[in-house]
Parts: sequence; C-alpha cells; structure tokens
Amino acid sequence: MNTHPKFDGLEVGYDIPALPGMAEGDIQTPCLVLDLDALERNIKKMGDYAKAHGMRHRVHGKMHKSVDVALLQERLGGSVGVCCQKVSEAEVFARGGIKDVLVSNQVRDLAKIDRLARIPKLGARTICCVDMMDNVADLSAAAVKHGTTIECLVEIDCGAGRCGVKTTPEVVALAKAIDAAPGLKFAGIQAYQGAMQHMDSYDDRKAKIALAVAQVKDAVDTLKADGIACDIVGGGGTGSYYFESTSGVYNELQCGSYAFMDADYGRILDKDGKRIDQGEWENALFILTSVMSHAKADKAIVDAGLKAQSVDSGLPVIYGRTDVKYVKCSDEHGVVEDPQGVLKVNDKLKLVPGHCDPTCNVHDWYVGVRNGVVEVVWPVSARGKAY
Amino acid sequence: MNTHPKFDGLEVGYDIPALPGMAEGDIQTPCLVLDLDALERNIKKMGDYAKAHGMRHRVHGKMHKSVDVALLQERLGGSVGVCCQKVSEAEVFARGGIKDVLVSNQVRDLAKIDRLARIPKLGARTICCVDMMDNVADLSAAAVKHGTTIECLVEIDCGAGRCGVKTTPEVVALAKAIDAAPGLKFAGIQAYQGAMQHMDSYDDRKAKIALAVAQVKDAVDTLKADGIACDIVGGGGTGSYYFESTSGVYNELQCGSYAFMDADYGRILDKDGKRIDQGEWENALFILTSVMSHAKADKAIVDAGLKAQSVDSGLPVIYGRTDVKYVKCSDEHGVVEDPQGVLKVNDKLKLVPGHCDPTCNVHDWYVGVRNGVVEVVWPVSARGKAY
Repeated sequence: MNTHPKFDGLEVGYDIPALPGMAEGDIQTPCLVLDLDALERNIKKMGDYAKAHGMRHRVHGKMHKSVDVALLQERLGGSVGVCCQKVSEAEVFARGGIKDVLVSNQVRDLAKIDRLARIPKLGARTICCVDMMDNVADLSAAAVKHGTTIECLVEIDCGAGRCGVKTTPEVVALAKAIDAAPGLKFAGIQAYQGAMQHMDSYDDRKAKIALAVAQVKDAVDTLKADGIACDIVGGGGTGSYYFESTSGVYNELQCGSYAFMDADYGRILDKDGKRIDQGEWENALFILTSVMSHAKADKAIVDAGLKAQSVDSGLPVIYGRTDVKYVKCSDEHGVVEDPQGVLKVNDKLKLVPGHCDPTCNVHDWYVGVRNGVVEVVWPVSARGKAY
Repeated sequence: MNTHPKFDGLEVGYDIPALPGMAEGDIQTPCLVLDLDALERNIKKMGDYAKAHGMRHRVHGKMHKSVDVALLQERLGGSVGVCCQKVSEAEVFARGGIKDVLVSNQVRDLAKIDRLARIPKLGARTICCVDMMDNVADLSAAAVKHGTTIECLVEIDCGAGRCGVKTTPEVVALAKAIDAAPGLKFAGIQAYQGAMQHMDSYDDRKAKIALAVAQVKDAVDTLKADGIACDIVGGGGTGSYYFESTSGVYNELQCGSYAFMDADYGRILDKDGKRIDQGEWENALFILTSVMSHAKADKAIVDAGLKAQSVDSGLPVIYGRTDVKYVKCSDEHGVVEDPQGVLKVNDKLKLVPGHCDPTCNVHDWYVGVRNGVVEVVWPVSARGKAY
C-alpha cells in the first residue's frame, strides 16, 4: 500500500497512523482525521465568498501548519497566499511553494530577522508586521545585507489587546519610517480583532468589528491624505469575515478555522441565531480515538487525552452522538460517560476538538479520508515550528 | 559548534532551538530549557530516597518522553526501568536501550498488541496492564505468535476513576487467567492513584492513599493465600511516593514530575505545609520565551502561547520574578503584565509550565544548560508517540 517514497521506512503505529489506501477502520489511534469532502466544500465556499465580495483571501496557515492544505486552499479556494505567526512557519510555507507569505506578527530577535530577510530568495513575497519604531532599522539592515525586500504592515491593536499600536499618529509615523528605510516597503495595515471571534452573539461581534473598522478607516484615510497607499488592509477571521469584507476598508481576509472547524467556534451563532457548525461550515477535522477500557459498565475510557489535543477552549465533543459524552481529559485518557453501555472496547469515536490550532500542533500527520478509505496522509509540515 | 553527527543538517531557529556549546543567550525561543544541575539533584534525591526505603523506582517516561533523561535516571537515580503509556512510547524506550519497560495502560487494538509482543526482541522486559478478561487471549496469542513473553499487571482502580478493576475477586480472576495463558506471565499489580496527586493538603492526600493501600493490600493478600505472588506492586507519584513507600504493600514507585517540576505540582504542600517546589524539589524545566512587543507601556507580549505549552492545569509562572506576571495565553502569544515597564523587547523570561507532561509533548527538543552554556540538546524522543 505504501506507494510513495515519502513514506519509505515509516512504520504504521510507530511513525505514522496510516498509509494511503488503508481502510478507515485500520487507522491507528489517536490521530487527526480530515473528512476530505467536507474540507473541500469549506475551502471552496470561503473562496467563492471572498471572490464574490472582491476580497483577497490570505488563509491562516498557523491553524493547520500544512503545506498540503495551503496548496489545496490555493487550488480550490483561490487564496492569494498564507499568513502565519512565526519565521520558521514562514520558511516551511515558502519552501513548500507558497509564493506570498505574511508573518502576521512581530519579528524582533536579530537571528529571526536575518532568517526572515532570506525568505524572498526562496521565491516568496515576504511580509511581516511592525508595531515599534526600533524594529524598523533592524529589519532594514537585514534586508539590505541580503539584497532582498521585506514588506511591512503596521499592526493596529483594534481590540485583541496584544501586539499593535492604538492610535493613527503612531501608524503614520511607523508607515513613514518603513517607507524611508532601505530594503523595506510599506505594504499596509494588519488589523485582526482576535478577541471577538469567539463571542457567541452575532450582534456582539458586529459591534466590536464596527469599532475596529472605524479605527482602521481613520488610519487608512490619514495615510492616504499623506500620499501613502495601503496595498493590504488585512484582518478578519471565521467569526467576523462578513463584517470586514463589507466594511469598505479591508481588502484581505485571513480566515483559518473555517476550513477545519472546532467545537469552540462551532458554538458561535450566525445572524439567524444558528450555530455556525450547523450550516455555515462543516466539521472536517476530527481526533479519531478508540475505546481502550470499559471495566466499569457506565464508563468508557478512550485513548485521546492531553497528548492528543489542547483543551484550552473546552473539552472535545463526540461527533454525531448524543448517547455518549466525553467528560474528562487527563494526560493519556479521555473518560466517556456511557450510561447505557453502548460502547465496546476498540470502538472508534470521532472527536471534534475544542480548539483546532493547538490541537493540530500536537500531531505529526493528517489522515485524509474519503468514502471509508485513507486517500492522503499529509505531514503537519510546520508542527513545532514555534521559533 | 556543531560537533555531533546527530545535529548534521539541522538549522538553528528552524529545526532546533540551539546547539551544544552555544551561549544561553543565543538560544532561539520559545523552547524547553533544562537546568542540568537542578535536574541531576532531583534525580539523585529521588533515587536515594527509593534506595533508602527499599523501593524499586520505575521512572515515568510519559512525563519527559526522553531516552536521554531516562538513561540519566538510571545512571544517577538507580531507576530499574521506565513506565510509559503507549506502545509506541515503549518502542522508543526499548530501542533507546531501556531494558525494563512497563506500559502502565491497557493495550487493546490488535495491531498495537502485535507491536507490544515484539518489544522483548529488542532486549527489554515488557510489561502491560490488564483490566478486562477478553484482553488476555489477544495478548497471549500475540506473544505465542512471536515466541516472546508479555508480563501482565492487573490494574486496580484505586481512586483515579479511569482504567482498572475495583474488587479483589476481579483481580484474582484476571491474575489466574493471565497465569494460565501461554506467552503471558502474571507480574503483579498496577495501582496508581492519579486523582489525588494534585490535592494541596498533605493530609487529604494521605487519606486517599490509605484507602488505596487497603484496597491493594486486600488483593495482594488474597492472591498470596491463593499461592500467587506479586513481583511488582507498583504505583506512587510525586505527590504521594512517601505514602506508598512506607505502606508495606507497594514495592515499586512510578514518579515522573519530580524530575522537572511544574507550577501545578509545585503548589501542593508537604507535611509541614510548605510548597513542594520550595525545598523538596527544584524547578528544572522552563519554557524560555522572549518579549516580542512592548507597544503598550504596561504590557509585554512574549512568544510562548498555546503552541509552546499546555494550559490545562493553569497558566505558567514567570520564574524568579514578582514584578511581572504572565496573565493570558493565546495561540502564539503570552500577555505579561509589566506595570513598571521593566521589560524590554528581546528580554528573555523563564516560565515554569503549568503542567509538564503535555507541555513537553509539544516540543521537539530539550536544551540542557549549565553555567550559562548549552551543554546538551536532547530530542523529546517519544514526542507525538501517542499510538
């Protein structure tokens, strides 16, 4: 079954959970499984949406950390490139053939800046964010040293409360400094409102984005009056893209989780009060887990605990089942309430993870399944690339 | 500086956070750092304790997932081998030269059982846990097929509420079935009380273990009366080892976290009401992180978020500092309150992780430091080995 040289020498159950061609039932657990039909529908739907609204879509690669998924998003979803959060992630995507890579984050360490300045030599447009003046000279020096161009977005903190400046004068001062620095090019604004993406109510999210849009519009208009154009005004996530894309200010979306979905995002409500995992997006990502003990009649123990997922945003949900419930997560085990004793040892369950991004980062592989057969096994290419 | 062939071709800042010989200040963040002096003192202390109390110490390899740390525990701490939770982990340890490996967990999937039955061929005594009768025939068949012996412990649920049987008659029935099965050998009892390890009060923990000891003693005595000896009566963790080791019933400890410590364990109290990280054990494990934005005067943003740690047991604590505090963790960022503005961009902080086990599992490398110099870089050998 192992017909691709990239799998040579890999042992199923030791190095890798499955190989292409295997029956779904033979996959070794716990592991990440992708429903390829659902994934492709999600990707196409967001791509169509962006196109219909005249937006570029720069997909968030930090969610999946996969070159294969990013390339699928280019092919089916018309994405213009990726954003990611670390220089080492950007290198993975650039080496993997993505031609337009934004590190939607600050790069401050001099060794990291040096690596960033070399990414254009891999053939990728290379962009990063800036929020402090003393970063500009360091970025410039590295770009000049390597004879490359680093494009820079000024990051606005429009509510996430992390990186970014808060006032238009700060934006303008940084933009001008970037524009004047050799080897750098001012490319626009980064303004992602991360803190509101998971608010349940559509109207609450709308109100938060309205504030962000006003803040970004003021900066963009002021820059324009100063003769400084923004090629990119980027932001937007799975809980807000419809606001940014109709704002008249943003021109790039940066959605990530829409492609896979997770339990925490799934709970937020659309404008009609319906959960977004009940129509807007499909669950495409699952943690496949097996029952490995049922020594007590009403309790099944499964093999996916904290080493197979992150529970920062809540416990996983068992997909398609109301008769059994994942109620506790320890290092190696999940406790599943099974009041009617319907589960048997070696039964497999599909868990929707609480939070997809840090869950994907724990695993080495995605097992892509269609019609009960393993169609692809993709590496989580940038797993552990946190530098 | 790269003088070892195992590092050939690895790029610092892409594949690996540091190389041996580097100055501590040049380590790429975020990454795991081990204080080698503290680690060695912890290991020696527990080894001396076990020896003084006539206990074997089978160190818990699922905590660190590192062959190098396990070998250090053998050398400095006199450990008899490792326990771990997955067959793929056991393979890593056996391939790495550990000669006595317990999978302190159930193995039910037939493909995993087949792999388990082959581990003795790597030269390691191979032990697993059993808590259901129908597992015995599967384990036996695989051992016979491969001409090996799998030793089996009957797991008692003595309070953790996960795997394991609850009554002595169940223990005896399983022990007899194991003893009668070709290829298997009954080796004793696994009875780890995991649920009480993190209770703050020494007396609360003592009361819980007293219940466990009574339960285990009943099973061991009943087996003995039936002519069935227990080579191993194993359990005990960092929050309880002094109870099991003086119980007169247990003969093997299975401590893990003592070697590294973490913030959640550190908070529990010893018999004098003192935190166990204030004398009993030293913090040897840190997440090294850098400030990468300080665009607001009272808030520093660091580069260690959910991709660099697990926060299931609480946020990390900044080591040795009371002037700054890690208050929020998102995917890629930590927010550090810095009310006096004492931090600067690129300053490094050492975080004590909330929970060491799932934090180690996110990283590929341990950077071992002594006297400000990187002395060793060890792979997290069984990282991602969840199968």
